[in-house]
This record gives sequence, C-alpha cells and structure tokens, in this order.
Amino acid sequence: MEHSTIAAIATAPGAGGIAVVRLSGPESYAVAAKVFCPANPAKRVEEAKGYTALFGHFMEGEEAFDEGVALFFRAPHSYTGEDVVELSCHGGSAVARRLVESCIAAGAAPAAPGEYTRRAFLNGKLGLTQAEAVMDLISADGRQGAALANASLNGALAKKIGAEKDALTALQAHLTAWVDFPEEDVPALEDAQLVSTLTAVKGELDTLIRNYDAGAVLREGVDCAIVGRPNAGKSTLLNLLAGFDRAIVTPVAGTTRDVVEQAVRLGDIRLNLFDTAGLRETEDAIEAEGIRRSWKKLDEAGLILAVFDGSEPLIREDLALAQRCAGRPAIALVNKVDKPTQFDAEIIAGDFAMVLPVCCQEEGSRRVITAAVARLLGTNNIDPHAASLSGQRQLAAATRARDAVAGALDAVSGGFGLDAVSVCVDDALDALCDLTGENASENVINEVFERFCVGK
Amino acid sequence: MEHSTIAAIATAPGAGGIAVVRLSGPESYAVAAKVFCPANPAKRVEEAKGYTALFGHFMEGEEAFDEGVALFFRAPHSYTGEDVVELSCHGGSAVARRLVESCIAAGAAPAAPGEYTRRAFLNGKLGLTQAEAVMDLISADGRQGAALANASLNGALAKKIGAEKDALTALQAHLTAWVDFPEEDVPALEDAQLVSTLTAVKGELDTLIRNYDAGAVLREGVDCAIVGRPNAGKSTLLNLLAGFDRAIVTPVAGTTRDVVEQAVRLGDIRLNLFDTAGLRETEDAIEAEGIRRSWKKLDEAGLILAVFDGSEPLIREDLALAQRCAGRPAIALVNKVDKPTQFDAEIIAGDFAMVLPVCCQEEGSRRVITAAVARLLGTNNIDPHAASLSGQRQLAAATRARDAVAGALDAVSGGFGLDAVSVCVDDALDALCDLTGENASENVINEVFERFCVGK
Repeated sequence: MEHSTIAAIATAPGAGGIAVVRLSGPESYAVAAKVFCPANPAKRVEEAKGYTALFGHFMEGEEAFDEGVALFFRAPHSYTGEDVVELSCHGGSAVARRLVESCIAAGAAPAAPGEYTRRAFLNGKLGLTQAEAVMDLISADGRQGAALANASLNGALAKKIGAEKDALTALQAHLTAWVDFPEEDVPALEDAQLVSTLTAVKGELDTLIRNYDAGAVLREGVDCAIVGRPNAGKSTLLNLLAGFDRAIVTPVAGTTRDVVEQAVRLGDIRLNLFDTAGLRETEDAIEAEGIRRSWKKLDEAGLILAVFDGSEPLIREDLALAQRCAGRPAIALVNKVDKPTQFDAEIIAGDFAMVLPVCCQEEGSRRVITAAVARLLGTNNIDPHAASLSGQRQLAAATRARDAVAGALDAVSGGFGLDAVSVCVDDALDALCDLTGENASENVINEVFERFCVGK
Repeated sequence: MEHSTIAAIATAPGAGGIAVVRLSGPESYAVAAKVFCPANPAKRVEEAKGYTALFGHFMEGEEAFDEGVALFFRAPHSYTGEDVVELSCHGGSAVARRLVESCIAAGAAPAAPGEYTRRAFLNGKLGLTQAEAVMDLISADGRQGAALANASLNGALAKKIGAEKDALTALQAHLTAWVDFPEEDVPALEDAQLVSTLTAVKGELDTLIRNYDAGAVLREGVDCAIVGRPNAGKSTLLNLLAGFDRAIVTPVAGTTRDVVEQAVRLGDIRLNLFDTAGLRETEDAIEAEGIRRSWKKLDEAGLILAVFDGSEPLIREDLALAQRCAGRPAIALVNKVDKPTQFDAEIIAGDFAMVLPVCCQEEGSRRVITAAVARLLGTNNIDPHAASLSGQRQLAAATRARDAVAGALDAVSGGFGLDAVSVCVDDALDALCDLTGENASENVINEVFERFCVGK
C-alpha cells in the first residue's frame, strides 16, 4: 500500500459539463473535508459511507469557487483499492485545475502518470495486461479498438496466455521428470506428442503476433503521409478525406509548404493525415525544407497514400517515389481518372500493395480508399472479442516466447535431446510470465505505467 | 416539466480516466436499469436512493462492454430537478459514445445542446443569467475567467441588476402616482432627486458595459492575427509565443502561405494566434490567396499584432497596413531591435494603441508583449468577484436599459415632463427584466441554450 494521497483531474481535458477530480490514498477523506463543504451542515465528509454522495461547495481557503458533488469510496471497495473521493465540478479546465490546486494545498500530492491504475495493480485489483487494457480503452476512439481493449480488461489475453502456459508447464513437468530422474520409470515423451503440443502453442502465439499491427491500428489510429509530385492532387485528397476545405488548393504546383495535419476517421480507423509539399527537384530554399519534411513523414508513417497524376505520363520523380514506397504499407492512387489517362501504372505496380484509380474530387473515391486502407492494414478481419496483444512490451514478450517455442521445435527435429528442448521451454515460460506480469520487475512496471497520462 | 428522458456525454471529449454519461428525465432509472447491471445481484437500480452509487457493468443487450459506477439522484434533488443517473465509464470516447448509444437504444432521447441546463432553468433550479454563467464556467480556461463566471453563477449579476431594478421601480411607483393621480396629494418629485437616482443607475450600467469586452476576453480568449510584410518576423513571433518551433521559418520572404493556427496562453488570456502570409503586391496566385486570407484574419481578429522590420526603412506597404489597423485593437511590434534601427515608428504610431520595440527571438519580448496585451484588452483591472455581463444577449439588454435611463435623464434636463420620464423608465425596467430572464420569451430562452454544447 502507498502511504501518500494523490489528486488529479480524471476526465478528459477541455470544456465539458462535468469534470472529475479524483483523490486516492489514506488521507482522501481528510483532504476532501478541507476542499469540499457539504450544503447540508448536518453532513460530515469524514463520516460519508462508501458509494454515497454529497452536494456542496468547493473551497480554496474561505472562498467557494464552484459547487458540485463528492462521491465516496471506502477501501478496499474502490478503483485503486484505497479510500477514494471523486469530486465532480463544473467542467471548465480552469475550475478543475483550481480544484486540484486546492487538494494539493490541503495535503494531497499531484498524481504521477498512471498512478491510480498502478495502485490498482499493486493492490491486486487488476493484472498487468488488464492495466494496459485500461489505457487502451481510454485512448480508443473507435468501437472496434474499444472492444479489443475491453476484451483484454476482462482478461481475454490473460486467459489465452494462461492456457498456453498451462500446456507448456505440463510439458515441462514431464520433461523435467524424464531429464532429472532417468533412473525412475518415467515414460519417454513421444516426439510426435512434443511436436504437436509445441506446434499448437506456437500457432496461437503466431496468431497473436500476426494480428498485433492491425489491433494497434484499431486502438491507436495510424499516421498517414500523403505524398506525390507537385500538383498531383494531394491537398485535394486531404480535403476529400477531411470532408472540408482544409488546405489551400490551386492549379499551381508547389502550393503546400508547411505540413498540413488533419485527423479523420475512415471507417473504424483514425488516420492522422499529413499533407506534404510536392516532391520535386528545387532551388527554392523554403520549398526544399518543405520537401525534406515530406520525405521524413513518408519514412515515419504507418500508411502511405502516394498520389500520381493519371493525366500525365510517368516521369523519373514518380519512379523515385515508387521505389521509396517499396516494402512499405503504401497505396498508389492514380488520380484524375476523369481525364484521359497518360500514366502507365504497370511500371510502379510492383512497389505498392495496391494501385487504385481515383478522382480525388469525387465522394465515391473516399469509399474506395476506405475499403482499401482497411484491407491493407488488416483491420477488416479482426475479432474484437478475442485476445490481442497491445503495446511493444507485450509484443516483445510474446515474440520471445514464440521464438523459444520455435527453438524447442528445432531442437526436437534436430535431435538435440530433451535437455535442449527443456531449456527452450523454460525460456518460453519465462517470457509468458513477463507478458502477464507474474514475474514483472519494478522496471517493467515503471515502463508500463509511464505510458499512461496523469489522472488515469 | 419535460416528459422525455435525455442522454449525453457530460464530460469533455477525448481520452480521460473517466467519462460521465448523464441521464435526466422521468425514465432515467428505467433506462439505467437496461444499460447498467450492478455487480452485486442483490442491488436493484430502480430502488437506488438519491445520492448513492453502485458498481457494475455497462451493457449493450447481453454484451457487457465496460465496467464502472452509476450515481443516482432523485427529483427534485438533482442538477436538472428531475430524476438523474450519472454513469461513469472508462474515459475513451469510443466507450462513452457506445454507452450513449445503449441509453438511446434503451429509450432515452439524445440531449439537445444545453438541454440539461435548460431543464434546470425551467424547473427553477437556476436563473437565466446563472444558466449563462454555467456555460462560461465550463468554457473558461483561465482562473480569472472562471472566477467571473462563478460570481455570476452565485448571482452577482442577478443581484446587481436586481438592485438597479429596485431603484427604478421605486422611482416609477412615485412617478406613476404623480402622473396618474394628479388630483391626489402626491408630493412632486424633485428634479435633483430624479437626476441623482437615474445618474447612479446609469453609472452602474455604464461600468458593466465598459467591462464587457475585457470580461469576454478573460472568459473566451481572443483571436489574434499576426500580420506584416514578408520576412518581418511573423512566424518567429508565433514560435516565440507558442514556445516551440510551430511554423517553418526561413530568411526567405513569403515562406508562410496557409494560415498557421496555434492557441497559446499569455498571462491569463488565451490567444488563438493566426500566423498569416506576408502582405505585399504579388503576381503569384497562391501567395495572393494567402494574402487575401491574411487581410480577412486581420479584419476579423479581436487583437492584431502588426510586425514591422525595424532594420528596414518604412515603405508604402507598412503605411497601408498601419491605416488598416487604425481604430482597431492593434499593437505595432517593431522587430529586430538587435540590429541598427532604420524604421521611423513615429509615422505609424498614431494608428496603433501601442508601439513596442521587440526582438522576436528573445524570451524577454514575450513578457513585454504579455503585459501590453493585458493592458490593451483591459483584463488587468477587472475584479473577478464582481458582477459582469456575458454574451451579446446580456450586453444588448444592458445597453438598451442604459440608453433608456439616459433618455430619462435627457427628458428631465430638457423639461419634457414626468410623463416622458416615466415612459423611459418603463423601457429601462423592461430591458432589465429581459436581462435577468424574468420576462424572457421562448425565443430568447432558445437563443440562450443554443449557445451551449450537447451534454451541458
């Protein structure tokens, strides 16, 4: 148990009808009594029962600066497992910030990032993968991403990993008995049985790893660079996807210089679009800086929409762009299909996952692009209620486990003996325990909760 | 009383630890019972007492998609005066949206903008100026703005207007008796007494009206256009005020084309900065479009920062810009004071409220600009606990009342007789009743609550 009492705004920043400031720790009631004055003088904060609320005023010293509701939770029946008080004030950021300042003046400490969920984890209210799911649920802005996170919060991943661990543990028990007590009458494991168990575990881990990227896209969205030669129609595409006139569009090549950002929702995916300066050779220093930023966005993006002008013949710069897109999650959009086609898309087709003819001024092209993006990113065949990996930490642990299981299979097929198999299986079990947090070190726990924001 | 039950997200949009969906209306408990399943099977939503909470799962049909807390309020002891249930779920926008959808599927109607506060007003929980203060409090992101709004929510404006109304009503009673019953022995009002009462009322209204703009700036922030010739240092100023490298800055004139937006906090004021294309004659179609947008921003802005290059002599374009700023809330910033001065600021000084030498690359200039902006906008001498007007509606009503009182004073000094005075005082009283909402029509009420967002 932590001994400090923490305070932070628990709701999203910005203007809303209600904002909630959450206190957690042994002094929550004492702090609340200093910053909250019940409207009914017969009521006392210190005596409030768990799961009851009071109406009153929020105070800074003698000054009442807002009114609202205090909701009380007694340890261990709270989110963190500690005494918790949730103070609902009017939802302006100024009011909520002032309430936090009052709580701190009354003896609370500012909460560190993820500290509420960290305390819930340390007090045994949540497992580590569930704690990670809390963050995913909070940041999800699509229904599918939220469903994936809720499945993890409900333990879908913990259960799946638990089942694989059970299979490996049973195997390991058998192997250990056979290796350590050769004089005992332990029946030898058949290679076929070993291979079948290990292959099944490897298959499950492979599926989790394969679906990782698509799950991440659903949960977190993806940065999408719009690239192409000047005047190919990049800003028109941005405006089409944004649904309004976001960027200046003119018939003149080189209109866009600063990178223009716009978040849009395409189907169930949030795309953070970056419209970039057109790629060409230039003597102009500003345009050159814009183009440098374009290439950088292209290299960093999780999705590339490369726009080509279908009404012009393919030139050297188009080839250079296509080569830079090779092996990347990139879709070629051959724009201006309403005009006679001059562009030979066959030449660049090999460098792209898909080549689509579009007209960036037509709404129909938005639907075509939406479907193509979902297919390319694999988000259209994810079961949102199944177990899924979230975050580099889980991916790395799952990958280590999968590789160790693959190593065990190699040891079997290579005839290296059961000792070697046993070492690999040990390593796999260790990686799976890392994943679920059963043997997570202080460092790993710190790393998990550092990803959170304050107030979670 | 309204007969429908409404649902909406009451917290700010975006990612947070908690989001709150609020139900209000006669069916709130019935709807909550369909979307919320208490974890303790012995508890029933329909039987929950006011000011108590339950832990449980949020349901869409048979599927639990999140877990959280339901907090119950029984009419009339709630924000709206109706039965209210506040559902706290995990704070991702996807989760909260799905919870609203579930509530609607369970029979609730989507709340209209401001509908919670409107119901609170219609049920007598809040006066009209207090309802307007709720919105101001929600949107305030500075401490001073929030304090102003809280003063109004506590009735500071209603009390102030009430006092002026009382003074005018007493006067009117006397005038009416004298006008309507000349044969009775009503003592005539002395002109001096009339003038003194009317002058006092007018003075109070004048103060409210004079402080309106500064109050609006504190509450709402202000749009600020950064304008000037190419390469005067506009983007450098934006970056200085933003505190990071927001816009591309190069030594080349005409770098910025699209308007670059950035919200910053300067002291207690939120500035929405608009960095614009440099103003000059141009043949370039894109630059011309950028410049057209610059002039438009200049004309719309509530604050203009005009940047001049102090190391260059003043030219015709500088004069044109200065003339366009005349009579506007504009500050001239003569930049590049680190270089030898070539610019004659005297020539343009008459067109600006202030002329300041600055160096947009130095942090010290940020403080100078902050102080100047507070002085120009009058935010440095506002008492945040005093009565203040908020919104065009209140300003218009107060102005009408002030003008009517001024008319009454003219009638006295012009010797038009007490009949004329009485008509003016009637008009003033009518305007003040409009202001407080005592005789607000359905249309006025609609107008007030249309300014709200959904969920307030």
